[in-house]
Amino acid sequence: MERLESHACFGGAQTVWKHASEVLGCEMSFAVFTPAHAAGERLPVIYWLSGLTCNEQNFITKAGAQQFAAQHGVILVAPDTSPRGADVADDEAYDLGQGAGFYLNATQGPWAQHFKMYDYITKELPKLIEAEFPASDKRSIMGHSMGGHGALTIALKNPGRYAAVSAFSPILAPTQVPWGEKAFTAYLGEDRATWAEWDATALLAGASERLPVLIDQGEADPFLENQLKPEIFAAEAERLGHPLTLRRQPGYDHSYYFIASFIGDHIAHHAAALKG
Amino acid sequence: MERLESHACFGGAQTVWKHASEVLGCEMSFAVFTPAHAAGERLPVIYWLSGLTCNEQNFITKAGAQQFAAQHGVILVAPDTSPRGADVADDEAYDLGQGAGFYLNATQGPWAQHFKMYDYITKELPKLIEAEFPASDKRSIMGHSMGGHGALTIALKNPGRYAAVSAFSPILAPTQVPWGEKAFTAYLGEDRATWAEWDATALLAGASERLPVLIDQGEADPFLENQLKPEIFAAEAERLGHPLTLRRQPGYDHSYYFIASFIGDHIAHHAAALKG
Repeated sequence: MERLESHACFGGAQTVWKHASEVLGCEMSFAVFTPAHAAGERLPVIYWLSGLTCNEQNFITKAGAQQFAAQHGVILVAPDTSPRGADVADDEAYDLGQGAGFYLNATQGPWAQHFKMYDYITKELPKLIEAEFPASDKRSIMGHSMGGHGALTIALKNPGRYAAVSAFSPILAPTQVPWGEKAFTAYLGEDRATWAEWDATALLAGASERLPVLIDQGEADPFLENQLKPEIFAAEAERLGHPLTLRRQPGYDHSYYFIASFIGDHIAHHAAALKG
Repeated sequence: MERLESHACFGGAQTVWKHASEVLGCEMSFAVFTPAHAAGERLPVIYWLSGLTCNEQNFITKAGAQQFAAQHGVILVAPDTSPRGADVADDEAYDLGQGAGFYLNATQGPWAQHFKMYDYITKELPKLIEAEFPASDKRSIMGHSMGGHGALTIALKNPGRYAAVSAFSPILAPTQVPWGEKAFTAYLGEDRATWAEWDATALLAGASERLPVLIDQGEADPFLENQLKPEIFAAEAERLGHPLTLRRQPGYDHSYYFIASFIGDHIAHHAAALKG
């Protein structure tokens, strides 16, 4: 593990690291914010999953989350969004390949070799974080857009593992929208039966844990109608009695200006669950 | 004036604009954060001047200032750092030419035609802001690095015009450091007598107004010793009895992680003066 950056920030440290991922078979970068803490103290960890085209930098430079993590005494971990490198499969489009890992384990074609972001986020990364940083084994997960899809599917597939889950503008029914149909066809193949285990709406019925879901969605988000579809997820949550707080924020778009405006609420929500 | 971007943000709007600057003879971009306000209400304005290599984007995406501007009811204006364009003089180095306007009026060589950032920031831009936005004529000014130099020199040269001035990691004695010597030689010529009116330390003795100066300086800033030199400015302020709060922040560097950590204090300081 090599440290690429270190900056004092709100009394703690914002660092960026590179390591050789066994699961992904490539070098990966991830960012960690560690608040000020007592020697020997171990803090709970919030994992942040970013959206299409992002890497580990977007969240740490633009979301303004560190001040709230410092206030609540939680670590923030923001990984890259896909395997990377010259020998990793890629596509010219922004919504497939590098920068577009969709937090699943690919089974098809050239993608199957490296695109195992689900295993990376749920197994390899937390093991590394809990070994190398002052992190406890209390975890929660959140994300934006493709990363909101990642956070929700990962939490739903791992009952008991995450103390809280939330999302900004998540892709909530990827098997029914263009972004998801394109990526899942490439990564998982034509058989749609294999797609359901990576779709938050489809996973909801089988959830053995009623982990409350917090979602913020901007009403001026240009992807709202065709790609995000919170109404499909909300209807399924209501049918099943799954606890959901879906906040539709008038005027807000898909950008980090939206995330920054409400990240304090999300960090507070996670911190309460992590420390409760 | 053309609107390039508009994002809801902390209950207000973060916008980015382009206009044809008469003073600079080129198209210029600037960013404005306008908090929620009553119809017809006019709010005071804080001008932010960015550092070398920056444009109007750095501050609005990375500083996390909007939340505090929303809280205090002040407008934030962040202009680009120099004239721009294919027919504007430039240099390959990051510290001269486009992205390095130094907030002065150039008199020499190819720079004299467009590099009039002092006139742009003190005359053309506020006139535009006060005509086109819900802005009162109450103004204050702050900045980072080269922009901290800009904020201090502009405030010192215009007594009564700015209600407050502050800076992060400012270049405080440009006539005595490599960045300033290089830029001033190019923009102002070899005669060092002409440089003094663009040097905050040199301007302090002639200041007819004792406007308190607030400075935050990171102690792990790699430019501290050779380029910033707060000790020269502090000694002159002490000699003259000019009110100065110089906060040396252990561990902090020159980045926006540093700015974000203390921007709330600066906005509060400005808001108190603007509304006092």
